[in-house]
Amino acid sequence: MTFRAEHLLGIEHLSPADITTLLDLADQYAEHNRQGRAHRDVLEGLTQINMFFENSTRTQASFEIAGKRLGADVMNMAMQASSVKKGETLIDTALTLNAMRPDLLVVRHPHSGAVDLLAQKVNCAVLNAGDGRHEHPTQALLDALTIRRHHDRLHRLSIAICGDIAHSRVARSNILLLGKMENRVRLVGPPTLMPSGVQDFGVEVFHDMKEGLKDVDVVMMLRLQKERMDGGFIPSEREYFHRYGLDAEKLACAKDDAIVMHPGPMNRGVEIDGTIADDINRSVIQEQVEMGVAVRMAAMDLLARNLRARRGAKAAGVMV
Amino acid sequence: MTFRAEHLLGIEHLSPADITTLLDLADQYAEHNRQGRAHRDVLEGLTQINMFFENSTRTQASFEIAGKRLGADVMNMAMQASSVKKGETLIDTALTLNAMRPDLLVVRHPHSGAVDLLAQKVNCAVLNAGDGRHEHPTQALLDALTIRRHHDRLHRLSIAICGDIAHSRVARSNILLLGKMENRVRLVGPPTLMPSGVQDFGVEVFHDMKEGLKDVDVVMMLRLQKERMDGGFIPSEREYFHRYGLDAEKLACAKDDAIVMHPGPMNRGVEIDGTIADDINRSVIQEQVEMGVAVRMAAMDLLARNLRARRGAKAAGVMV
Amino acid sequence: MTFRAEHLLGIEHLSPADITTLLDLADQYAEHNRQGRAHRDVLEGLTQINMFFENSTRTQASFEIAGKRLGADVMNMAMQASSVKKGETLIDTALTLNAMRPDLLVVRHPHSGAVDLLAQKVNCAVLNAGDGRHEHPTQALLDALTIRRHHDRLHRLSIAICGDIAHSRVARSNILLLGKMENRVRLVGPPTLMPSGVQDFGVEVFHDMKEGLKDVDVVMMLRLQKERMDGGFIPSEREYFHRYGLDAEKLACAKDDAIVMHPGPMNRGVEIDGTIADDINRSVIQEQVEMGVAVRMAAMDLLARNLRARRGAKAAGVMV
Repeated sequence: MTFRAEHLLGIEHLSPADITTLLDLADQYAEHNRQGRAHRDVLEGLTQINMFFENSTRTQASFEIAGKRLGADVMNMAMQASSVKKGETLIDTALTLNAMRPDLLVVRHPHSGAVDLLAQKVNCAVLNAGDGRHEHPTQALLDALTIRRHHDRLHRLSIAICGDIAHSRVARSNILLLGKMENRVRLVGPPTLMPSGVQDFGVEVFHDMKEGLKDVDVVMMLRLQKERMDGGFIPSEREYFHRYGLDAEKLACAKDDAIVMHPGPMNRGVEIDGTIADDINRSVIQEQVEMGVAVRMAAMDLLARNLRARRGAKAAGVMV
Repeated sequence: MTFRAEHLLGIEHLSPADITTLLDLADQYAEHNRQGRAHRDVLEGLTQINMFFENSTRTQASFEIAGKRLGADVMNMAMQASSVKKGETLIDTALTLNAMRPDLLVVRHPHSGAVDLLAQKVNCAVLNAGDGRHEHPTQALLDALTIRRHHDRLHRLSIAICGDIAHSRVARSNILLLGKMENRVRLVGPPTLMPSGVQDFGVEVFHDMKEGLKDVDVVMMLRLQKERMDGGFIPSEREYFHRYGLDAEKLACAKDDAIVMHPGPMNRGVEIDGTIADDINRSVIQEQVEMGVAVRMAAMDLLARNLRARRGAKAAGVMV
Repeated sequence: MTFRAEHLLGIEHLSPADITTLLDLADQYAEHNRQGRAHRDVLEGLTQINMFFENSTRTQASFEIAGKRLGADVMNMAMQASSVKKGETLIDTALTLNAMRPDLLVVRHPHSGAVDLLAQKVNCAVLNAGDGRHEHPTQALLDALTIRRHHDRLHRLSIAICGDIAHSRVARSNILLLGKMENRVRLVGPPTLMPSGVQDFGVEVFHDMKEGLKDVDVVMMLRLQKERMDGGFIPSEREYFHRYGLDAEKLACAKDDAIVMHPGPMNRGVEIDGTIADDINRSVIQEQVEMGVAVRMAAMDLLARNLRARRGAKAAGVMV
């Protein structure tokens, strides 16, 4: 086992071997979840706190289920964004929670980098559940696991990430992970929704869906962050769907066995046609959710092992 | 044991034998709760998700306590009504949760029929905790248990359901249950608060409280849904209380051993006089709450048995 | 063991021996928490309900962690202040919860005396987590434990409580506790933030920080309740900090080994200089949070023992 990290802050810090270790363990948990096998001893006696400074019913629920399946005491703390106006307050909040001696801290925050900052101030394991436009590592890992299960490998695949890339931490973490595993990543979307400096990521950029999807193994749609769209490009949702929404005609350009992914929640009829989303021969959207629980179980399991090892070493050092 | 249902969506689908099975088991749980006996093994390893699309502190707490007493992992998900504007979104939410593999889903929703729809999309057991004006089956079951404990039977009783019947799923589920068990049900209230087509329910209708309560065994008051009252009938709360609120004078028309019920929360001085609500010789309002926990324990226990049996059969079928 | 109370409603009702019993047990829990030792059996099978009629992320989290460490089933109920307009409603809420047979009820309420009222209506153990301007006993106990750990005693110390005393239940509970344990308490703050009748508390009052802090063993800062400040005294936060905020110059008046305390959350730069708050040689603010969990574990442990003893006696009486 190679995974020696203290926190899971982003894909950026993981090696290909780390990723493989995580996915292998998650794959086991996925099978055990299907069989209804329990693993209450894994996090028994540990306290997991979910601190969500942004609402996210589904991600929070996934972490909560994952923690409870592993026997952790799970607490949800709804943090008012309003009470976190200053950097100091975030740190004071972190220090306060840290003094209560939790073991696993799952954090979502609207500001990029906030979770990294918080991790420096605490002595428990921190998992980034999404920070601003920065990273959302468990999403990228669950996407990777879903891809690997369908294509029996996670390298030399051609993957199109489509839509609102500029505002998406999901896209960013996926680009990093898929790149590390030596896949060919294409970004497909309107120029206004492409991040600046995109050429540095080692990706190909397309502004036409049919060109972008040509012969890909994976079509990964993104949620259109409608509230962040300002300015001239997009005339309407209907026009967006016409040009960038995934429909049967566009999907026909991809390989015959290409899978369709979406991180949810979907805007049906905007970024994806509802019938494609529901097509169990192509869409793996529900499986992504299922793999999300498994990946979070694996990540918390590995981080807890490392946490216990550090604490054991520290206690031994003090005693000797 | 006759109870073979997959879900508990409404009283409509239950046979008298189902109801008796449920109440018998609930009665046992009620006694065990009073003795402080634990039953942690009943739902051990199962995940119960409470999805409340409408706020209800007391009903959610009752389901949560019931699940925890039986050893389930209980999660509360506060669903924003705003995020459920379209039917598709409700279904997507259901599918997402379903992919996380919960075992018991307790759902309250403002729209009649929403819980039935959701139950069709998932492969866990669904309990309806109230949907629009449609059904609230656990409330009717806890009312039935309370009645049965006081009158030592649940048939050939005369029961007056009083007040705002038109807007009440509690009334609807109670009418169904009490009718199936061969009781005489009277509806008492102003014409404007009677549902249309009420004659089809096999009930008697009264617009005068003293006539309606004459010689009944049970006086079941309903909460006045003040926010839904529009139009000419009701001049004031004071006038309403004068005509339809339960006071000593009106209660004197019922049998001497008639019990007083209310599903809560009460509007004291509007639909019921506070001294009657607090009179431990007549009011069984606190006992209704107590029976609520027991009934929900029984319902989840029976549904979990059926769920396990279905899964076992499916697994055996796959393996053979 | 002397602690025989049914509830923990305020410091007012505790004897010095009660306080010592509580702190001794809390000190043990604090050590065990640091060692990662579990105590799942202490509250096993008991239901703890946190009813917060006022938001308090940190206090609620502290009670939740404390209960879970001891094996209780913990439920959080967010009570809408709006639904508690009348006294009757609070009591109905209490009676409803009581009928669900919880064992420990942790209550925060904006009105002084509300928690006492509620405790009279239920037959479980009630812990006051702060009621209006009245009491916040676990805060005073955690402060006392922190002081005792640093000065190796809790008597004949000189303690300055500084700032917005008039609006503070924290100050009130601390004055009571520190007085009972025979310490010298000074209140330091502007005349407009002193409670009326303060001379009856057996304290000294200062309006100048340097005079007030002279040779004290403990500097206890309070949160400035900015929203409650009305009227002429305070020209600005900057002016307040200049006169009453704790900075190095003012702290220099206290004893060399004086500790700095704050109940949190802090307004840095208003009532306390951030560098002092973070100075691990003087500030014990994080330790206060840590001791908070330990004190709540001790309080719930002792109350649960008494609850079980009462129930056992009652059951024996019924059976004999």
